[in-house]
Amino acid sequence: MIQLLEPRWLLPIEPWSVVEDGAVALEDRRIIALGNRRELREKYPDAHRTVLPDHVLLPGLVNAHTHAAMTLLRGFADDVPLMTWLRQRIWPVEGRWVDPDFVTDGTRLAAAEMLRGGVTCFADMYFFPAQAIEACLRSGMRILSGQVVVDATTAYANGSADHLQKAARVIEQYRDAPGVHFSLAPHAPYTVSDEVFVSLKVLSEELGIPLHTHLHETVDEVEESITQYGVRPLERLDRLGVVDPHFMAVHAVHLTDDEISLLADRGASAVHCPTSNLKLASGVARFADWLAAGMRVGLGTDGVASNNRLDLLSDMRLASLLAKGSTGDASVVPAQQALWAATLGGANALGLGHLIGSIGVDKSADLIAVDLSDQDLSPMYDVASHLVNCVDRHHVSDVWVAGRQVVRHSELVDEDPAQLRALATTWQERIRSS
Amino acid sequence: MIQLLEPRWLLPIEPWSVVEDGAVALEDRRIIALGNRRELREKYPDAHRTVLPDHVLLPGLVNAHTHAAMTLLRGFADDVPLMTWLRQRIWPVEGRWVDPDFVTDGTRLAAAEMLRGGVTCFADMYFFPAQAIEACLRSGMRILSGQVVVDATTAYANGSADHLQKAARVIEQYRDAPGVHFSLAPHAPYTVSDEVFVSLKVLSEELGIPLHTHLHETVDEVEESITQYGVRPLERLDRLGVVDPHFMAVHAVHLTDDEISLLADRGASAVHCPTSNLKLASGVARFADWLAAGMRVGLGTDGVASNNRLDLLSDMRLASLLAKGSTGDASVVPAQQALWAATLGGANALGLGHLIGSIGVDKSADLIAVDLSDQDLSPMYDVASHLVNCVDRHHVSDVWVAGRQVVRHSELVDEDPAQLRALATTWQERIRSS
Repeated sequence: MIQLLEPRWLLPIEPWSVVEDGAVALEDRRIIALGNRRELREKYPDAHRTVLPDHVLLPGLVNAHTHAAMTLLRGFADDVPLMTWLRQRIWPVEGRWVDPDFVTDGTRLAAAEMLRGGVTCFADMYFFPAQAIEACLRSGMRILSGQVVVDATTAYANGSADHLQKAARVIEQYRDAPGVHFSLAPHAPYTVSDEVFVSLKVLSEELGIPLHTHLHETVDEVEESITQYGVRPLERLDRLGVVDPHFMAVHAVHLTDDEISLLADRGASAVHCPTSNLKLASGVARFADWLAAGMRVGLGTDGVASNNRLDLLSDMRLASLLAKGSTGDASVVPAQQALWAATLGGANALGLGHLIGSIGVDKSADLIAVDLSDQDLSPMYDVASHLVNCVDRHHVSDVWVAGRQVVRHSELVDEDPAQLRALATTWQERIRSS
Repeated sequence: MIQLLEPRWLLPIEPWSVVEDGAVALEDRRIIALGNRRELREKYPDAHRTVLPDHVLLPGLVNAHTHAAMTLLRGFADDVPLMTWLRQRIWPVEGRWVDPDFVTDGTRLAAAEMLRGGVTCFADMYFFPAQAIEACLRSGMRILSGQVVVDATTAYANGSADHLQKAARVIEQYRDAPGVHFSLAPHAPYTVSDEVFVSLKVLSEELGIPLHTHLHETVDEVEESITQYGVRPLERLDRLGVVDPHFMAVHAVHLTDDEISLLADRGASAVHCPTSNLKLASGVARFADWLAAGMRVGLGTDGVASNNRLDLLSDMRLASLLAKGSTGDASVVPAQQALWAATLGGANALGLGHLIGSIGVDKSADLIAVDLSDQDLSPMYDVASHLVNCVDRHHVSDVWVAGRQVVRHSELVDEDPAQLRALATTWQERIRSS
């Protein structure tokens, strides 16, 4: 059965163009054709047609870094710096509450929020990844499941060897699951030893999957590394041979020119999480410089506990604005580049650029339609500018993941909002009373 | 006829509290009581009751700086610096198109967008202010109408004397109109001479209304003033005696410690427009330092041509985030302070703090209800944090200005969305073809 989606505007992202009165043909999970509406109607006369009269159709957004289950801690701790936030607020509450149910329910809520906001794929980093994967299989969302590794004992595992064994088991169990992809996710240079980084690097190469870690998020992290290891974290990891095309550095707020060149030269990726970096007062990443150096880049919301939402549209807008304000150059990160980072840029960083991130023949039908008929979006001189600067997540009307429609008229097809709210409230009462 | 609004949470703003199961009693245009729901029901047994079961009720937001009619230029010129933007894009298109109809229609669209987004009062600065006032009288929106004065010839008037005469006429004509307030609005130090600033200062004191001007928006502006006048713009105006409690400095991106002290000492106000300042790469105002110095502050969207929306909730969130990221201190501008700036702070800056900006007895019933039942807002540990960090403008469900309900179920009571869109499209086609 062939479907034709017929948007007023079609934005394939790569190659860049804005096609008026376009169409995309889907068969099963894949895109089989795109282009002019009349030609596609002639080619597929029996297709099921969905007209999107006031809509722009673009690839689903890629949230290149989050901790989905932490959605249960939305707004739990605000207005405190990273280390206080982690050590005095987040780690204690996680220690008390994180278990398989927390991850199942938190990820289900997160997937609901992300799908409604046009995010069709996210890079996750959290404990009990099997539960997160199950939540995504249920919701129809694509996940890059990060297998967390730390040296310490967590609610999930005891030390790095146990974390690694569990990682291997999860990857083995879900390797053929549809829409499920993997990364190895050492938490950060300050919580993971050299030996573990090296063994993860070997494994990531063997499996051909990303190695996803927090890096250079704060000045303190960099200074502590100099004290402990004599070098900055990135240099330490590079000496270990870890910095290669599989390497994904999350945050990377504090990078020197040389470090930007190094990441670009190694073909590594960096993920910009602008809201989280501002909220925790970590600083402002040099996003425009990353792009100018030809670094591979994606955008992330980070977890809800430091955002406080999973709204990549809003982070995309902020990334563009912040780059202009922090460089003093209003021409950097124009709309087209911001849209690229939020879609194909992120997909490439996750090692999934062959499958998602743009609308192309043989790619997966991970698509979103944004309704531009709202009076608050009028007038409109440029579709791309509107997507970055004017559109809110509630303008996202329809979402497909691998050809399956998961959002229709801005509501989830397979979830009951009242049930989701009840779930969140149950956890809220539990956590608040603790 | 007495009305009781019965929200799940009541946020009067001043004094600060979050009242659960609260109520506010309105009579005609005014608030006559607020507090505990049961007590107010007993006191006013015959009141018409509106239950807001999942909502927070707070004062309407105050947009302390915009150019409403420029809504017709939404996204017309992006990704260029301020002076290029002004001189090569905005001024030419304004020169071609700005007339009374442009202002009538543009302000009508702007008022619609602002009201739906919870803004009940805005400080405007644009040509043909009588048309903007008429649009607001029609839409039920409160306006501080800025009477633009520049030395040059504009579509509106020929030189400062003519601008001033027209200002006096508009103020005379609308002085008793409900919900209409005035400011004098010399465009900027680089477009207005000393003599004109002095005569405006005298007039603002005589009328008891604000003197609203762009100030220290860019480094270039400051440097040009040093070249031309030998001093920075603020010092020039202070020497003229202009900087007093009526003085409202918009943008104030580039202020030294001494300049912040000066504005605080003089009892002057400053308006922070974070999105516009980033978008035009003007820089980041020292908002946290303003607050620490005890300066009077408000928040503004600026015009849509540099934002590209009139969404004060989003600017409030950005103001809080940006203050943390730019100072390196995550504790600055917490939710409570951000909410204050967006309501009472702005009202004070506009000289309207006695009338609006908080929920208090005898104040005008300018109120907004925000529906917190959306699953994307769950769970919730802190109402104030959610308003700043999680809520989008489409969560604003009901809006009252001076006791009159203008938004219900997130839609305007007195406007037809299809008509507004048609209006915007007509201008879009006209402007695009020029």
